[in-house]
Amino acid sequence: MAKHDVEVAERGSFSAKDYHDPPPAPLIDAEELTKWSFYRALIAEFIATLLFLYITVLTVIGYKSQSDVKAGGDVCGGVGILGIAWAFGGMIFILVYCTAGISGGHINPAVTFGLFLARKVSLIRAILYMVAQCLGAICGVGLVKAFQKAYYNRYGGGANELSAGYSTGVGLGAEIVGTFVLVYTVFSATDPKRSARDSHVPVLAPLPIGFAVFMVHLATIPVTGTGINPARSLGAAVMYNQQKAWDDHWIFWVGPFIGAAIAAFYHQFILRAGAAKALGSFRSNPSTL
Amino acid sequence: MAKHDVEVAERGSFSAKDYHDPPPAPLIDAEELTKWSFYRALIAEFIATLLFLYITVLTVIGYKSQSDVKAGGDVCGGVGILGIAWAFGGMIFILVYCTAGISGGHINPAVTFGLFLARKVSLIRAILYMVAQCLGAICGVGLVKAFQKAYYNRYGGGANELSAGYSTGVGLGAEIVGTFVLVYTVFSATDPKRSARDSHVPVLAPLPIGFAVFMVHLATIPVTGTGINPARSLGAAVMYNQQKAWDDHWIFWVGPFIGAAIAAFYHQFILRAGAAKALGSFRSNPSTL
Amino acid sequence: MAKHDVEVAERGSFSAKDYHDPPPAPLIDAEELTKWSFYRALIAEFIATLLFLYITVLTVIGYKSQSDVKAGGDVCGGVGILGIAWAFGGMIFILVYCTAGISGGHINPAVTFGLFLARKVSLIRAILYMVAQCLGAICGVGLVKAFQKAYYNRYGGGANELSAGYSTGVGLGAEIVGTFVLVYTVFSATDPKRSARDSHVPVLAPLPIGFAVFMVHLATIPVTGTGINPARSLGAAVMYNQQKAWDDHWIFWVGPFIGAAIAAFYHQFILRAGAAKALGSFRSNPSTL
Amino acid sequence: MAKHDVEVAERGSFSAKDYHDPPPAPLIDAEELTKWSFYRALIAEFIATLLFLYITVLTVIGYKSQSDVKAGGDVCGGVGILGIAWAFGGMIFILVYCTAGISGGHINPAVTFGLFLARKVSLIRAILYMVAQCLGAICGVGLVKAFQKAYYNRYGGGANELSAGYSTGVGLGAEIVGTFVLVYTVFSATDPKRSARDSHVPVLAPLPIGFAVFMVHLATIPVTGTGINPARSLGAAVMYNQQKAWDDHWIFWVGPFIGAAIAAFYHQFILRAGAAKALGSFRSNPSTL
Repeated sequence: MAKHDVEVAERGSFSAKDYHDPPPAPLIDAEELTKWSFYRALIAEFIATLLFLYITVLTVIGYKSQSDVKAGGDVCGGVGILGIAWAFGGMIFILVYCTAGISGGHINPAVTFGLFLARKVSLIRAILYMVAQCLGAICGVGLVKAFQKAYYNRYGGGANELSAGYSTGVGLGAEIVGTFVLVYTVFSATDPKRSARDSHVPVLAPLPIGFAVFMVHLATIPVTGTGINPARSLGAAVMYNQQKAWDDHWIFWVGPFIGAAIAAFYHQFILRAGAAKALGSFRSNPSTL
Repeated sequence: MAKHDVEVAERGSFSAKDYHDPPPAPLIDAEELTKWSFYRALIAEFIATLLFLYITVLTVIGYKSQSDVKAGGDVCGGVGILGIAWAFGGMIFILVYCTAGISGGHINPAVTFGLFLARKVSLIRAILYMVAQCLGAICGVGLVKAFQKAYYNRYGGGANELSAGYSTGVGLGAEIVGTFVLVYTVFSATDPKRSARDSHVPVLAPLPIGFAVFMVHLATIPVTGTGINPARSLGAAVMYNQQKAWDDHWIFWVGPFIGAAIAAFYHQFILRAGAAKALGSFRSNPSTL
Repeated sequence: MAKHDVEVAERGSFSAKDYHDPPPAPLIDAEELTKWSFYRALIAEFIATLLFLYITVLTVIGYKSQSDVKAGGDVCGGVGILGIAWAFGGMIFILVYCTAGISGGHINPAVTFGLFLARKVSLIRAILYMVAQCLGAICGVGLVKAFQKAYYNRYGGGANELSAGYSTGVGLGAEIVGTFVLVYTVFSATDPKRSARDSHVPVLAPLPIGFAVFMVHLATIPVTGTGINPARSLGAAVMYNQQKAWDDHWIFWVGPFIGAAIAAFYHQFILRAGAAKALGSFRSNPSTL
Repeated sequence: MAKHDVEVAERGSFSAKDYHDPPPAPLIDAEELTKWSFYRALIAEFIATLLFLYITVLTVIGYKSQSDVKAGGDVCGGVGILGIAWAFGGMIFILVYCTAGISGGHINPAVTFGLFLARKVSLIRAILYMVAQCLGAICGVGLVKAFQKAYYNRYGGGANELSAGYSTGVGLGAEIVGTFVLVYTVFSATDPKRSARDSHVPVLAPLPIGFAVFMVHLATIPVTGTGINPARSLGAAVMYNQQKAWDDHWIFWVGPFIGAAIAAFYHQFILRAGAAKALGSFRSNPSTL
């Protein structure tokens, strides 16, 4: 925080003496299709999204069941909305930690979309990741439903819907800003320039990313139940399969994709090289670092 | 998350230029029986499991006592189910942190079983660790019972049982998937290839491992009270010693062991070398790293 | 904690063999006005403070709405005061993490003021940061109000006010000590001498800083709603625009600025070089490190 | 966790090729009395303990006030017992982080006592630290009482007392085991052998230490309110000044000191060199590391 020497180091690295951005990922990289590591990454995304939905939706159903006073529950029972927010944020923390070295740890089509826009992953990888994530989410929610069909349906199935009293525009706005917070954190935490300066950043990145998910849930669970992850919303909608969830479902794709696009734009063109390079001639003291 | 260069480094290390897995641990390593460090590890596992059960079961009993309206408690009193989940996850975090350098920080027969299957520990070490863990758990719960026998029995003794309304299959499934989440995190966090790349991983590993335990408790406390640790379930069952706890007790051994075995298989054969080596000829660009 | 060798290393670095403080920032640094990185920093402060207020005030409004029994809410509903404290602390954690390399991650005029007093930033940078933070805060709260004007006004708008039963002096005292805790943590976490010894400190700094904000909210939400950030208080006051909030508003500028000044004094003159240099001749064993 | 190579490295370092424990601190080190860094450490301990008590006792009083239904509070209001446990653990996290490089970050006479027994600090330092801690604690609670004398007295003053239904022996036992958990974590986290292997340990140490305090509070708030820190108990007793708090007060000195002594013994003689050296001749493969 606020160290003048950080600022100096920052400027220094623009001098491009010791750091180069990796080249943009190609749109279609036929070669990666021939590698086991690519299929392994798809499997890792599938399993991680499955576990994410399994734990989080089971937490939601369990909380609603334990706090349902009509069914003998306790008004203060269960883990609370706070516990639900922890479940979403905490699972992203551990799953990003576990899969970062295998697949990059997206576990979210909006994250994949943002990274594709920033040319960090190829088009083919982005599409297949999203397919794996959606299938994983459907299976994860399916597992919860298989465990407890009665509870699952009675307690809303973990589906994302606009809450009563909120307009479509508000719901869309909440998803856009919420996903912006998440994807902005992802870009900041995985910035390769930052990693070049400090090798611990990749290892530490999962914690702020998980916290970003936790924070957005604290704020928007009352509005939309919090999507910010189209695979999560799709998995729950497919398994819950009620009119209202499907009617609102487009919000949970359009909102996150817009939010991710704005975050990619903000990081790549405002915070990183774009404008800085254009204005590079202003700089007069290339640091010797 | 999603850095193309991470992917490259990953591929590079498969070229086996700079990293070799340690050889599998022998089934029976007579030599380790002659070392003080082996007995010290057993003592550390015993004490850690004792402290784990002491703190967590005391938290459970304290919460139930403080929120028991019939006994003058407060409906919202105590630390809540969320506090209980924190107690289990947080204790694993600090105990793994404290014992990682001494015993490897298992504190859980299912973790020991998974690491044995992956040939990270010898058979003799695995068995003696499990014995130490179970004895530690019994003593830890015994300490809570000695403190407050009346409360201990009245409030369920921290024992794992199937909750009303859940079938045996669901309970078993919940234990399998929950233990999978834990042991998968353990394997990811302690992967020696990852440590070779980045020396901070072992130091940071306890945090995601503790969070994995926290997450699983959020999701499955309403189903089984959450075992995912046979020593924890055994310690509570021995001290509580009620019919129902013993009837369900097999679930808390079979489930965790199956989950740990699947996690070991998933990590060793899908995510790590096995298949990758088989398909190694596909790779065309051995990275120069 | 309590390592004798740390103490030795500490003494050693006073010998000024391997570490020099950066020179104080000039009061007015005309050159920085010519650099894109300066404007980028202002944008980053603006966006970060906007997101901070958006997420936190939405959390406050959402909690009050979900727990309002008169409006069909649930007495134990929502994320609770604990969830609100997490929202403030957690957002500071991720936003400091994201903006540390761009702007230093102040997100708070009191932090900027403290760092200005310690001559870590120039006067012109300090003033423009504060303007950016205040504008960001107003926009962030404005976004929440635009989403839900009815709820926003009904549930207090996230504004800071003295709670009933507390005098002005107590409120001012609470803000002073609370801001002292925050700014003292900021100074400790970003001490350049500490970074010179250990390169991980800057990366890890956002976590204790976020926790400091979390802690102060736990303690002083019942007293003043917790300001310790004049931009946060101003943003909410402008959008809520009620007499009481404006009457108390001065407390949330005077208190934090006094607290930040005391923290800057404590760190620079007690804990760091000042007195130590004066007494330097007492030292007899310059460590060889 | 469970890495065979960790085990090997461990054995290797016993060979004493690359690591030597620092010599034990002298009982009386007249020289340290001549150094400014010593007085600075006392000031840091005083201020840190003051802030610790101020934030935590204010949290306790605020919670009790907000959840007091007789005084117009809300049955689910305030931060809950969970929030109180976070306040104690979180403050220790940030204060240890802030003062580790200045004073070692004890903030607790029991920690100082344990480190004195292990000969990490001199007798004179230990005694003066304890005095500074106790004075800081009294001032911190005094600040809370000055803010809100009526609330402070009505809501129990944050004083530690045996809860109704628990015997003296149980309270003493709870304090002994709780302090053991804390001091054992302190020793593990600051083990100089561990730091020698991995330079990040000291930086990361405050987090598990803070979590240890959090965990013990979850478990023993219902029993004694949780002391495990004689300065904390003394500060509250002096300011609350009621018969019951003074009658039970000895428990909160004797218990923590016994627990700290056992932890020091366990770490120094079981886990570290003592026995290992005695049995050193058993080892047959000094690792080449």
